Amino acid sequence: MIDKQYIDDGLALHTDKYQINMAQVYWADNMHNRKAVFEMYFRKMPFGNGYAIFAGLERVVQYLQQFRFTDSDLDFLKSEGYSADYLAFLKDLRFTGTVTSMKEGELVFANEGMMQIEAPLVEGQLIETALLNIVNYQTLIATKAARIKQVIGDDVAMEFGTRRAQEMDAAIWGTRAAYIAGFAGTSNVRAGKLFGIPTVGTHAHSMVQAYRDEYTAFSKYASEHKDCVFLVDTYDTLRSGVPTAIKVAQAFGEKINFKGIRLDSGDLAYFSKEARKMLDAAGFTETKIYATNDLDENTIMNLKAQGAKIDNWGIGTKLITAYDQPALGAVYKLISIEDEHGQMVDTIKISSNPEKISTPGLKRVYRIINRENQKAEGDYITLKDEVPENEQRLKMFHPVHTHIAKFVTNFEARNLHHTIFENGQLVYDLPNINEIQADVTENLELLWDEYKRILNPVEYPVDLSQACWDNKMKMIHDIMDKVQREEGA
Amino acid sequence: MIDKQYIDDGLALHTDKYQINMAQVYWADNMHNRKAVFEMYFRKMPFGNGYAIFAGLERVVQYLQQFRFTDSDLDFLKSEGYSADYLAFLKDLRFTGTVTSMKEGELVFANEGMMQIEAPLVEGQLIETALLNIVNYQTLIATKAARIKQVIGDDVAMEFGTRRAQEMDAAIWGTRAAYIAGFAGTSNVRAGKLFGIPTVGTHAHSMVQAYRDEYTAFSKYASEHKDCVFLVDTYDTLRSGVPTAIKVAQAFGEKINFKGIRLDSGDLAYFSKEARKMLDAAGFTETKIYATNDLDENTIMNLKAQGAKIDNWGIGTKLITAYDQPALGAVYKLISIEDEHGQMVDTIKISSNPEKISTPGLKRVYRIINRENQKAEGDYITLKDEVPENEQRLKMFHPVHTHIAKFVTNFEARNLHHTIFENGQLVYDLPNINEIQADVTENLELLWDEYKRILNPVEYPVDLSQACWDNKMKMIHDIMDKVQREEGA
Repeated sequence: MIDKQYIDDGLALHTDKYQINMAQVYWADNMHNRKAVFEMYFRKMPFGNGYAIFAGLERVVQYLQQFRFTDSDLDFLKSEGYSADYLAFLKDLRFTGTVTSMKEGELVFANEGMMQIEAPLVEGQLIETALLNIVNYQTLIATKAARIKQVIGDDVAMEFGTRRAQEMDAAIWGTRAAYIAGFAGTSNVRAGKLFGIPTVGTHAHSMVQAYRDEYTAFSKYASEHKDCVFLVDTYDTLRSGVPTAIKVAQAFGEKINFKGIRLDSGDLAYFSKEARKMLDAAGFTETKIYATNDLDENTIMNLKAQGAKIDNWGIGTKLITAYDQPALGAVYKLISIEDEHGQMVDTIKISSNPEKISTPGLKRVYRIINRENQKAEGDYITLKDEVPENEQRLKMFHPVHTHIAKFVTNFEARNLHHTIFENGQLVYDLPNINEIQADVTENLELLWDEYKRILNPVEYPVDLSQACWDNKMKMIHDIMDKVQREEGA
Repeated sequence: MIDKQYIDDGLALHTDKYQINMAQVYWADNMHNRKAVFEMYFRKMPFGNGYAIFAGLERVVQYLQQFRFTDSDLDFLKSEGYSADYLAFLKDLRFTGTVTSMKEGELVFANEGMMQIEAPLVEGQLIETALLNIVNYQTLIATKAARIKQVIGDDVAMEFGTRRAQEMDAAIWGTRAAYIAGFAGTSNVRAGKLFGIPTVGTHAHSMVQAYRDEYTAFSKYASEHKDCVFLVDTYDTLRSGVPTAIKVAQAFGEKINFKGIRLDSGDLAYFSKEARKMLDAAGFTETKIYATNDLDENTIMNLKAQGAKIDNWGIGTKLITAYDQPALGAVYKLISIEDEHGQMVDTIKISSNPEKISTPGLKRVYRIINRENQKAEGDYITLKDEVPENEQRLKMFHPVHTHIAKFVTNFEARNLHHTIFENGQLVYDLPNINEIQADVTENLELLWDEYKRILNPVEYPVDLSQACWDNKMKMIHDIMDKVQREEGA
């Protein structure tokens, strides 16, 4: 028996069951339309990197636009015992909220809101899981790709990870995230079709095996494709693969572009240097050397340190799975809610793990840019109505170690949040991926190099305004007092 | 601009571009219909575990049944410069091959074929990437889940990882893999709908924040849901959360099933022991303690060693991303191909990395089961036509350290490969997931405990038959000789 496949399979059920159960409580209690504000942020920089790159917004937009419970969804929920009245309510539910968000490709740091959702409580709740699922992964991969690209520099980076990706969505959305972070292309043809990413690829070992010898295999490939990159390690890289590639290129002459050879195993540093000599000696000085085989920013940095002659880097497993840290822990917290009198009241989540305490209230995130050198001084989180641009002299202090403070003058305070949806209507013009890729380059120029190095970067300041900090402290103390009073009672 | 969305988005393009390019070479050279045999296997046990659990077959079946290039696929390939003739060929292409495979839930070990594809060369090639993408992830997660379940024992294990999964497909297929490996349920409602996995979930911190105090929040939940598990760590677990949960349960009495409390932060060992005392003192001895918060087999083993009073374990990030090893490196190698005379000829891939050398020839994998104790002696890989059952006394020797050998008598040689597709027709009756889950339990009983412990398990023997080993050695030497001759020429 094959599992069920539904023509109307939607994503509204792509959520945790507790969201459906809480939504039912809100609906039954007539709380569901209270306006609520949720904020999405992560608490720790992935890979110990100095910055992260926000990604996932486009997929979030698609998801919110298409958000609805389909007939088969409702049938399933009925079979799970939910009441007909509640299901009738869900049937008509659409996303009607307001979303402010960073743009894809924006630099983002720990403990600042990437996205803020102001919506009827029930809607904000039901969409939580999918939004986290999308943003966590894409932001993780964009950040990993940026780290790798940092080390690769002006060489070409290509994403080759589909076969090792964590299922199909990861393959295509991961390669999109890598592209916006500066990768040049992907092997995944579907991602090329869906997202307009340049696709690359030549042949595998199996083609050499199928023709049994390399000369025949390379020749057959060259007969059919003008651009040729020959994979040279099926039998013996230096004794057989490279010399044969050169022979075939010589035989075909002008009929092909002998673009490169690809090394996929063995000692890439040594093989690439030897292969370079052989190619150059044969006059193929423009022919590039491609390398693949479990590469990441560390192996690449090492290969470069050894003087490896590699021009094009194909990155698979380590990128597409974010191998050294395969999850970003972004969370989605209720920070403000309408009370029974129609007033917005801030909320907080206390925790025995202090770093898990949320920062209450509808907020804004500003990037403070020094007008003299066009470098970022840090990010500055305010309550919604503060206007940091109005300050002559901005005091920025560390949100934990509050004695660490600095004053900034002559600055631009750039609001990082854009309005994406307003009352359920998309009001944002989604940029294409090439614009996003260009934005990333520009955004990174705002950072001093010390924030960008891949090992032990300096911590970029993300500070709370005084008002924001006071509000948080007051709420923590109020809750603690209340717990103590009730315990005494 | 939002990226393109296609009504006819199919999965034939979910492949590496080099497959499309090689297929073109085969087609242009009239090689495409030569019968080829590909084998899928991995080289290294994931997580250092003593066994892996094969998963992904059902998704592979869906993929192969639906394999076709859609109109928008062909339009895209046209825009990439492929010729009209080649596209006309692709348009009519369907999968017509024969697939033998282990059943989902089968125990699988390094360097043995999980799946074998006998198909026209072009088909076997084009499906490679998607098959690896599917099997790599699902087998990885099933194995990780089995490790965790090993430590959890008879307690309940639940999969809660959707928000941290690597995009949406990973969330649903990963939770299915966890279920077949012994998990009891999932928080993902869509996975419940698609796969029939029991869904579980109650409420989040946000519900407590929305109602501002725990008493109101728990009461509202209890008014709407008979089964109640209260999350007790929004403000202060022992001083507020647990006492309030007890008060609400006392107030509601028989009207609810006070099934449990959930701990999601702080010292789970200490909190669970204290909470257990408080629940017992209030007479709620049947109320269970649920725990979540970055759990995996190691933290769970530690919590159990500390005497934590946890009954139900919710596992998220560490399971759904296989955090400590987020990729399985399964490969798909051409092992035999029809030559120009219609004869099948074995092929091999040599490599500077010796462990990357493939084992040529169409093969079978047998599990050798001792009839006296019903335990597995090891797996035995033969060429296709060998019949190990006919041997009185089977010689099993290590494929690398060949001096390590043993003789087995009075055994059953169980063929682990089942025919799934025959000439493109599905001939296998896919079991439902509950049957697969039961199979896993039964399969694990074949293994001695020494293979199953989570740290430093004994290496399970996977041996080649003498004929299979001789065939491999002969091919290696033939290729090496040929490389040397050509180098000398």
